[in-house]
Amino acid sequence: MSRYWNSTVKCIEPYAPGEQPKECGFIKLNTNENPYPPSPRVTEAIKAAAAQTLRLYPDPSCDALKSAVGAYYKQPMERVFIGNGSDEILAFAFMAFFEQGRKILFPDITYSFYKVYCALLHIDYELVPLDDDFGVPVEGFLKKNGGVVIPNPNAPTAKCMPLESVRKILDCNSDSVVVIDEAYIDFGGESAAGLVNDYPNLLVVMTLSKSRSLAGLRVGFALGSGELIEGLERVKNSFNSYTIDRLALAGAVEAIRDEDHFNETRRKIIETREKTVARVREIGFYATDSKANFIFISHPKVHASELFRRLREKKILVRYFDRPRLDNYLRVTIGTDGEMEEFIKAVKRIIEG
Amino acid sequence: MSRYWNSTVKCIEPYAPGEQPKECGFIKLNTNENPYPPSPRVTEAIKAAAAQTLRLYPDPSCDALKSAVGAYYKQPMERVFIGNGSDEILAFAFMAFFEQGRKILFPDITYSFYKVYCALLHIDYELVPLDDDFGVPVEGFLKKNGGVVIPNPNAPTAKCMPLESVRKILDCNSDSVVVIDEAYIDFGGESAAGLVNDYPNLLVVMTLSKSRSLAGLRVGFALGSGELIEGLERVKNSFNSYTIDRLALAGAVEAIRDEDHFNETRRKIIETREKTVARVREIGFYATDSKANFIFISHPKVHASELFRRLREKKILVRYFDRPRLDNYLRVTIGTDGEMEEFIKAVKRIIEG
Repeated sequence: MSRYWNSTVKCIEPYAPGEQPKECGFIKLNTNENPYPPSPRVTEAIKAAAAQTLRLYPDPSCDALKSAVGAYYKQPMERVFIGNGSDEILAFAFMAFFEQGRKILFPDITYSFYKVYCALLHIDYELVPLDDDFGVPVEGFLKKNGGVVIPNPNAPTAKCMPLESVRKILDCNSDSVVVIDEAYIDFGGESAAGLVNDYPNLLVVMTLSKSRSLAGLRVGFALGSGELIEGLERVKNSFNSYTIDRLALAGAVEAIRDEDHFNETRRKIIETREKTVARVREIGFYATDSKANFIFISHPKVHASELFRRLREKKILVRYFDRPRLDNYLRVTIGTDGEMEEFIKAVKRIIEG
Repeated sequence: MSRYWNSTVKCIEPYAPGEQPKECGFIKLNTNENPYPPSPRVTEAIKAAAAQTLRLYPDPSCDALKSAVGAYYKQPMERVFIGNGSDEILAFAFMAFFEQGRKILFPDITYSFYKVYCALLHIDYELVPLDDDFGVPVEGFLKKNGGVVIPNPNAPTAKCMPLESVRKILDCNSDSVVVIDEAYIDFGGESAAGLVNDYPNLLVVMTLSKSRSLAGLRVGFALGSGELIEGLERVKNSFNSYTIDRLALAGAVEAIRDEDHFNETRRKIIETREKTVARVREIGFYATDSKANFIFISHPKVHASELFRRLREKKILVRYFDRPRLDNYLRVTIGTDGEMEEFIKAVKRIIEG
């Protein structure tokens, strides 16, 4: 604590990102990274950009990337926003569309950064409890609010809402902005991206960190009505005009364009996930129906905190959340087939003791 | 305007970055970019990083870069903060150390982003008028305040304060944070970096965009007491934990380490600047004593707006600010000797025309 911090900074509890081990040799299933490399076209584009004009500012409006994303989603550039990872876009959205004194709604079990933004930006919120099966209850979001944030699929539960439910929430909230955080949508869920033409209050936020294997590049994007995108641009240009560097812009364009690589990568992950879910259920785990690149599991015999600790000893990192309702669950990223084999073997050994 | 924007976003006037022309062939003297390329070691490091682990998140605490910056300034890592350009660091500093209801002080003629941060973050400010020669008056910063921000050298005036004045302002403001924005310090000014050991309330903010030729990479850093750096980290980790990608981290480390390239580049720019100032004065311009990589000039015969327009027609971009006291001045970035030759020739033709 310092006397130079303002009252907000004294009170906030910053987000704690998953561990990034500095020593080698870990099987890293703790931060939902993609086990496969990005498209080789990304690497080539970055190398070309590195040789050119790093002394010049990047395009602050990120037009080339907006246009690539727009082409993929069949939207004009005016409906696309580019940010430094989806976290930055979420922060800008909280700054642009939510207001002190008007409670926003989000699930009680969800991405823990939402609460952190609220504390930093003095936004009040009300938590909507998930149902007993960790599902997002649509009716919880039909009350008066100053905004709605729902990740779909939700994290760390991995469960996905049908598009019909998203539509219902949008229909009942025409006075507030509904943010659908689709960081994990490419692993089997149905995206709300196509709904941005119908709903001026919908913002769909996505990232290149997961399905496009680019966590190291820091690029996210959002789709929404022109007025929402303009609101985000206004905040960005009042905060930091150039948040995406030339290399990230060049690489991201190719990541979006190389659809074959993208489809092949996510197909492999979905396959491995389905196999892994079947395997963990065989050895007694409860596992939700995952539509993400991670699974959410609990075992009746060994407590999750114990599993977490003992897996770490075996140099397998998974994510454990010491929070009510979550404290007997693990979130395990889907790695390669080989990595998941190692994981299953290790877990079996721990359970069979 | 949209009904979905909150009251802040409806009111803000975002920062307008200098023009980045999309067509080629311009001599670009409008955004204070470095005319020389970054160290070749930067390019190599980026290419190596591009081939490796982009699928993994970067180190959120940027330890390798903190350590390189710390080594250069003889400071421990705990006194170094890394941000996505100095603009992001300034935004975080405004969020961490300034508070609604406590007026901060900055010069009336200065980097126009400071006012924008204040509007976005609801921070009150009082402008301290520059003196008649565009100097920063020390006594203006000795009154009660909730924080101080001074760029040194100042922009767009290019004038530098002696370290003695900075020290006096620090001595008289031990209850508030004093931010010295040293984006241009490497071109001849005396840095306050060495004072961070003596003043817990001092934050020195720097960037790799100018003197290290990396505007396209988006990396800045700050030096300050451990408690100020921790305050910035708390805000960053409540906003976006990973704002610097793996490529920028790898490149920036080499940019800091390659001191020979850095010193050679700034020596050339200082030399060209001194020649250019002498030349423009010869043809009748008023020019401040610049310690930056740009000059601030005015001509008694031709109005600055006219010069700006006619230079643009000749495909030479400089910066014009249509604001009180500035509207008859141009800010002209120092390019290569050849570029400045072209600039002088064009300007002469306009004046003598």
